[in-house]
Amino acid sequence: MAQVTVGELGEVAVVERILEAAGTAATKQVPVSAGDDAAVLSCSDGRVVVTTDMLVEGRHFRRDWSEAADVGHKAVAENLADVAAMGALPTALVVALAVPPETEIAWIDGFLAGLLAEAGRAGASLIGGDLVRGDQITIGVTAFGDLAGRAPVLRSGACAGDVVAVCGNLGAAAGGLAVLSRGFRSPRALVDAHRRPQPDYRAGVRASDAGAHALMDISDGLLLDADRMARASGVAIDIDSAAVPRDEAVVTTASAYNLDPLTWVLGGGDDHALLATFDPDERLPEGFVRVGTVLDAVGSGAQVRVDGREVDQVAGFEHFRN
Amino acid sequence: MAQVTVGELGEVAVVERILEAAGTAATKQVPVSAGDDAAVLSCSDGRVVVTTDMLVEGRHFRRDWSEAADVGHKAVAENLADVAAMGALPTALVVALAVPPETEIAWIDGFLAGLLAEAGRAGASLIGGDLVRGDQITIGVTAFGDLAGRAPVLRSGACAGDVVAVCGNLGAAAGGLAVLSRGFRSPRALVDAHRRPQPDYRAGVRASDAGAHALMDISDGLLLDADRMARASGVAIDIDSAAVPRDEAVVTTASAYNLDPLTWVLGGGDDHALLATFDPDERLPEGFVRVGTVLDAVGSGAQVRVDGREVDQVAGFEHFRN
Repeated sequence: MAQVTVGELGEVAVVERILEAAGTAATKQVPVSAGDDAAVLSCSDGRVVVTTDMLVEGRHFRRDWSEAADVGHKAVAENLADVAAMGALPTALVVALAVPPETEIAWIDGFLAGLLAEAGRAGASLIGGDLVRGDQITIGVTAFGDLAGRAPVLRSGACAGDVVAVCGNLGAAAGGLAVLSRGFRSPRALVDAHRRPQPDYRAGVRASDAGAHALMDISDGLLLDADRMARASGVAIDIDSAAVPRDEAVVTTASAYNLDPLTWVLGGGDDHALLATFDPDERLPEGFVRVGTVLDAVGSGAQVRVDGREVDQVAGFEHFRN
Repeated sequence: MAQVTVGELGEVAVVERILEAAGTAATKQVPVSAGDDAAVLSCSDGRVVVTTDMLVEGRHFRRDWSEAADVGHKAVAENLADVAAMGALPTALVVALAVPPETEIAWIDGFLAGLLAEAGRAGASLIGGDLVRGDQITIGVTAFGDLAGRAPVLRSGACAGDVVAVCGNLGAAAGGLAVLSRGFRSPRALVDAHRRPQPDYRAGVRASDAGAHALMDISDGLLLDADRMARASGVAIDIDSAAVPRDEAVVTTASAYNLDPLTWVLGGGDDHALLATFDPDERLPEGFVRVGTVLDAVGSGAQVRVDGREVDQVAGFEHFRN
């Protein structure tokens, strides 16, 4: 069966296979799951957090660099990280999948296994989906979360004087991508960070409970996302580069490639660490590390600084995109 | 600007353009809209109805047969019809879009205009999305609805003795597809039905309030979807073919093509009419027409009959798929 293709088995049979693996029993949290025209999801406080992301083969993943289970894992992780970044806990997700008919059922099975495992780690259920034919594998995930009565923490709440903090290492996923791009498979820690980001899905709630003023997922690199947060908040952010957490493997591998590790640490996305700001008098929540300070906005250009300098003057950092 | 491509303008600028057109002001119904890591949607009764569908260029639409606005309209209509088919009212949707970089901004603008117009007709807001590059245009829509305290009406509730009813004409979208496939652009009523299905988004609530036992969206043809409903409910359904509502244009065009109109009326999908069953003693709600009867299940084969006969004996009907 594993070598049978989607085209051979037929879409109806593939969907039945997926529904069986995902389970469709009604629960209190999901009164109606996949299999009807729509699902019904409970929302404990009368609100639901919603985010959507699309992943395209060749652009967001490569089948020769990532196993099917890695792709399923990553599709879930990047969406549920956005749920956490509102100060919510993940509850559920739906997945739409376009695949070429020659895709092997084994790939679908692996994708689904990786997806369900990571969703399970986050406490979220797969409650619906769609399967269609397309020329390239394209994955649309919409994920849901529960604020449990908390106010959502936006990216626009940073105040001058706040401490800037991150939760999670930075640069490992970018390092892993660089390793794979050069045709290597190790260091494994970096390759795994690229293939299977491990967001702390409870960190957003901890930040919220600690009174975070602003919160967002770092998906496009610390500097780019800090600039977005600063602009949304009408402030500037100064990053203390020495304080940004990084794996030892990031430092040693970057050096081996003759790169400044800051290229990956400040510019690399896809680790899905959280960026937050807090009142300087508050104690940082578990897992968060101080990496900078919120300042008054300066002019109309980039609102992120590194060690007090403009970004284009930061040695070793190349990838700031606008 | 209209002839500029997505690749030339850049994805960030295109997203800003979309956010401006969609509007991101907070409302009571949408406390946080697009622009942050996630949106926050209010759910009046502590539950949210969720459905997702993916449309792929060349398979679900063709750019030479449908304008960009038609594609946006259709992507919304087919998803919100699924919301209505639970007995809910549409409230919101998110849209993920993969496009080749050479896609013109004019196409994006048109798609968005069609999407927003149809969402507005249904009372739903665009609350989030994603824009990525892909080899072919691929659209992932996830739509939301509000049951307002009602129980969801499932496809599995049909009872032997029930009246089977539909709301909406059948066969016009299939007729339109046949017209376009033959290189024609008229009759306009059929072509428009294919390009811009017009579901009655309030019909699901009317069916629910009238005590519907089972309810579903007809997206793959009356016979195939009635068979699905019958199997989910453990019953059989007999369709009275003469009673099924159809446009005059369906009858005349099918005849002109030397086809039995039943081919389109019973087998054509994409009209997004609603299929429901009711207690025979209840009055049918506005817009619903009796088209058949629920019977006891018969054996393990197809559970749909037409005028008391097995489907493969129905003259003129060719497209029953399993």
